Amino acid sequence: VVNFQDEEGTFLGFVGSCLFCGEDVSREIAAAKNKDGTALTDAMREAGLSGRVTPQLDPKRHRAYFEAHIEQGPRLEAGKIDIGAVTAIVGIKTFRLKFRGEANHGGTTPMAMRRDAGAAAMRFGVEMGERVNGFGSAEIVWNIGSMRFEPGVSNIVPSLAELVVQVRDVSPDVLAAIEPIVRSTAQECADRFRATVDIEPMLDMKPAAMAPALVDLIRKAADDLSASSVALPSGAGHDAQVLSRYVPSVMMFVPSIGGRSHHISENTSDADIVRGAEVLLRAVERFIAKA
Amino acid sequence: VVNFQDEEGTFLGFVGSCLFCGEDVSREIAAAKNKDGTALTDAMREAGLSGRVTPQLDPKRHRAYFEAHIEQGPRLEAGKIDIGAVTAIVGIKTFRLKFRGEANHGGTTPMAMRRDAGAAAMRFGVEMGERVNGFGSAEIVWNIGSMRFEPGVSNIVPSLAELVVQVRDVSPDVLAAIEPIVRSTAQECADRFRATVDIEPMLDMKPAAMAPALVDLIRKAADDLSASSVALPSGAGHDAQVLSRYVPSVMMFVPSIGGRSHHISENTSDADIVRGAEVLLRAVERFIAKA
Repeated sequence: VVNFQDEEGTFLGFVGSCLFCGEDVSREIAAAKNKDGTALTDAMREAGLSGRVTPQLDPKRHRAYFEAHIEQGPRLEAGKIDIGAVTAIVGIKTFRLKFRGEANHGGTTPMAMRRDAGAAAMRFGVEMGERVNGFGSAEIVWNIGSMRFEPGVSNIVPSLAELVVQVRDVSPDVLAAIEPIVRSTAQECADRFRATVDIEPMLDMKPAAMAPALVDLIRKAADDLSASSVALPSGAGHDAQVLSRYVPSVMMFVPSIGGRSHHISENTSDADIVRGAEVLLRAVERFIAKA
Repeated sequence: VVNFQDEEGTFLGFVGSCLFCGEDVSREIAAAKNKDGTALTDAMREAGLSGRVTPQLDPKRHRAYFEAHIEQGPRLEAGKIDIGAVTAIVGIKTFRLKFRGEANHGGTTPMAMRRDAGAAAMRFGVEMGERVNGFGSAEIVWNIGSMRFEPGVSNIVPSLAELVVQVRDVSPDVLAAIEPIVRSTAQECADRFRATVDIEPMLDMKPAAMAPALVDLIRKAADDLSASSVALPSGAGHDAQVLSRYVPSVMMFVPSIGGRSHHISENTSDADIVRGAEVLLRAVERFIAKA
């Protein structure tokens, strides 16, 4: 039984599972800072955690990896389903876009003579959404979670508009097609408003398939305990995507109340947690019986 | 000769010209604060300006109002024209929009189940621009100068998107049609992404026509001095819009270098300022000769 630290850390993600699997993340750890600018190495020293030896994955002993998690989404609750058996963890492509125009008077500058970074960014948001939907992937999602204008004054044409766009899908082919679409859409929108655009690729996380035999085990264990189940992808990243590179891995979801996550109201009922623990235990029992 | 204080003040606009014209702005002055929260009345006391008596407009002595200004726009420079004779000052409608959705995980929440305040706001920006262009007014301009998302994190669906939209035109009829369009467009965009929207009307400034006889005087004065001139509207508010309610008023523009304004690089060449002063003097001489 393992509980990984910092799967979604404020300094760096997946530190625990990467170290456990022997991946060399020393450069990332050395460079990592939180949003206040504190270095991860300093924070570890202050917390008395420097120099600890991390337990290592032993493929002879560790034959499979089962991860229990809340869904962080609304599908199980909406479908009145007890258990989600995760088929794959989505890959993520993230880009920071900076549209640059020219700050000018928002009344005296004729529309055709403006270089409007804000108009370009808003149009990018609309166009990007429509093009991503056009992929026809049932699982694809996208998000523009941050947006800000400079100078940010009502009567001044924005000289800068900065946004972050994130796209997730289970298909490597779909993800490979995202960057050219972000670039061409951004350039078209910049041109339309006489702006320029810089595109900085950020997070690039590959999708991870779960072991089909283990997905099947989760569903059979649910059946054993008269719990309803469904196979579904995970829209969020998890340690299982790291472990799946080294051992057969799978995840099991229990419902999130109201489907809410990344918010103070994130919660799961005690009954769902107990049922999940029982199903996971049953799946491990089935795995051991077969091994 | 008068130099009004605070035409575009950090506390309140048009304070000098409104007081000069005897308009009761005591409530506005009492309520005005700058962005740091300092009250205008406190700032005036600290600056030793409390209780001063403001000179008053005397229609028997003050027969007309001529205002010289930089264009703050690119038309004169682009057309290689020396003098702008202002026909009207645009009216301005400003609205603050708050789209509200639900903060949720940007990966695990299917697109169809999101309540995305940011997507609604970006779509509003695009739709609003297209509908405003559809008015067919040659002079209409619009600006979305500020935009921010909450919580503003790349992997969280925005729960709030706040923007300010400003529309300017010389026609009272066009301006009267703006608010219903802002409201219907915002509601459609909110509905599309399962968000809600609050609309707060802010600045509502009526357009002000300049006195045609005085516009003509400016152009004749330019002719007298072999300066080229054009009749054009002012896209920005000026004290002349206050004065024009009480005495025949007009404005005269000189070119802005690069058409830039509301930016540290705002500038006008010395030669253009001298020429403008000469043309304004000549126009006043012509007015006095006729009076």
